[in-house]
Amino acid sequence: MEVQVAVAKVAKYATSESGDTVEMVERPLGGLSFVMADGQRSGRSAKAISNLVARKAISLLAEGVRDGAAARAAHDYLYTYRGGKVLATLNIVSIDMVSRTIVLSRNSHCPILIVTDEGTRVLDKPSRPVGVHRRTKPLVAELSLQPPTTVVLFTDGLLDAGQRYGGSLDILAAVQSLCDEQGRTAQSIADQLLAQALQLDQGRAGDDISILVLTVRTRCRNGELAPFSNTDVRRLSVTFPLPPVIIR
Amino acid sequence: MEVQVAVAKVAKYATSESGDTVEMVERPLGGLSFVMADGQRSGRSAKAISNLVARKAISLLAEGVRDGAAARAAHDYLYTYRGGKVLATLNIVSIDMVSRTIVLSRNSHCPILIVTDEGTRVLDKPSRPVGVHRRTKPLVAELSLQPPTTVVLFTDGLLDAGQRYGGSLDILAAVQSLCDEQGRTAQSIADQLLAQALQLDQGRAGDDISILVLTVRTRCRNGELAPFSNTDVRRLSVTFPLPPVIIR
Repeated sequence: MEVQVAVAKVAKYATSESGDTVEMVERPLGGLSFVMADGQRSGRSAKAISNLVARKAISLLAEGVRDGAAARAAHDYLYTYRGGKVLATLNIVSIDMVSRTIVLSRNSHCPILIVTDEGTRVLDKPSRPVGVHRRTKPLVAELSLQPPTTVVLFTDGLLDAGQRYGGSLDILAAVQSLCDEQGRTAQSIADQLLAQALQLDQGRAGDDISILVLTVRTRCRNGELAPFSNTDVRRLSVTFPLPPVIIR
Repeated sequence: MEVQVAVAKVAKYATSESGDTVEMVERPLGGLSFVMADGQRSGRSAKAISNLVARKAISLLAEGVRDGAAARAAHDYLYTYRGGKVLATLNIVSIDMVSRTIVLSRNSHCPILIVTDEGTRVLDKPSRPVGVHRRTKPLVAELSLQPPTTVVLFTDGLLDAGQRYGGSLDILAAVQSLCDEQGRTAQSIADQLLAQALQLDQGRAGDDISILVLTVRTRCRNGELAPFSNTDVRRLSVTFPLPPVIIR
């Protein structure tokens, strides 16, 4: 059995920096956690907020704090620090090797999609962002870690893609159709969803977009490492473009 | 221009957990940092040490602390916490968008290899691990962020691969020959080095092995996202096998 987690992320067109933050950390008792935060507005001020929230959650998760408590703490921290005036959405996705479950914590109006062989679930119960309402709690869902499972999370740039041009992405249909294609990696699902959104936005993202895809599959061939397919190799790959130097 | 960072990582054969820790964090002023730590011995006790060291370094880097200071602090922390009795190797690799440089901090007997179009550099000046000698400092090197550059770091499992069978990997030659091949991604370089090491270890790693490869290249085609090649998409992908459930 193999878990893949992939992220594809763009900034709003013509802004220097995405206001979204996605961070990853190893859980001290086994497994990994991913934190996705979207700060209010866009650009540098949004980035400062999402970074603050993500950093607080990550540092607690790294110390073994449970996900729900880390989300509450991130809320309390932002609420205290900015006097309840600034909001952020916050999602935490954990692969917890102690409980052998996927733990999904949601403080966002964006739904989370889950596709298994039993069908598709949409986690879209109303949920508050962090930072503005006292005692905000996340909605937490837990799934057993078994193949085939695909979980898709995103920030609202994906929800609103194409809006300026009167279009919109049917995210549920897009995810279902990608899950039906054999052999799609988590990265190719994330990339394909982002490509469809950029298409609707005519190549210029109307907002920051971040997409996180988690898949649980029976083991597949592993490129160069195929001859050692019994060996438990962990792999991490990060790709990012370098902005050109701006000469002032 | 595009930066790729890839990690391939296996545990010593027949241990449940690698004693190495590799973590990633976004730098608050722009860019990313990667921390690779190898704790003394192997298995769970080594993991606890490498995790402690990596977590300290990561949390400081996330707050904007400079790399050399983060490495010194990680040393001081381990030295204080374990009374100078336990050691770990520690490498920090940063893509610093303020200085537009790659910053390499090294507290390890393992060399760092750098391949550019000017040739190959080997950073192998004697350097102490963290945790055991008072006032240990890292060796820090800084490179400008320009293509083509490949940087390869690893823990000593790669250095010692094949030792039990009287073989050893010529890492420098292997890296140079991989860099000569057009179109190799950072992940495929890391995977190929790991595959060669596992071959020498007859498929059963004699020690924990972690390999980190950083490449700076002119932009290449991006799969699903190719039609939007002007769009600055960041991507992260993590793959890891799930150990089978052990029923006691």
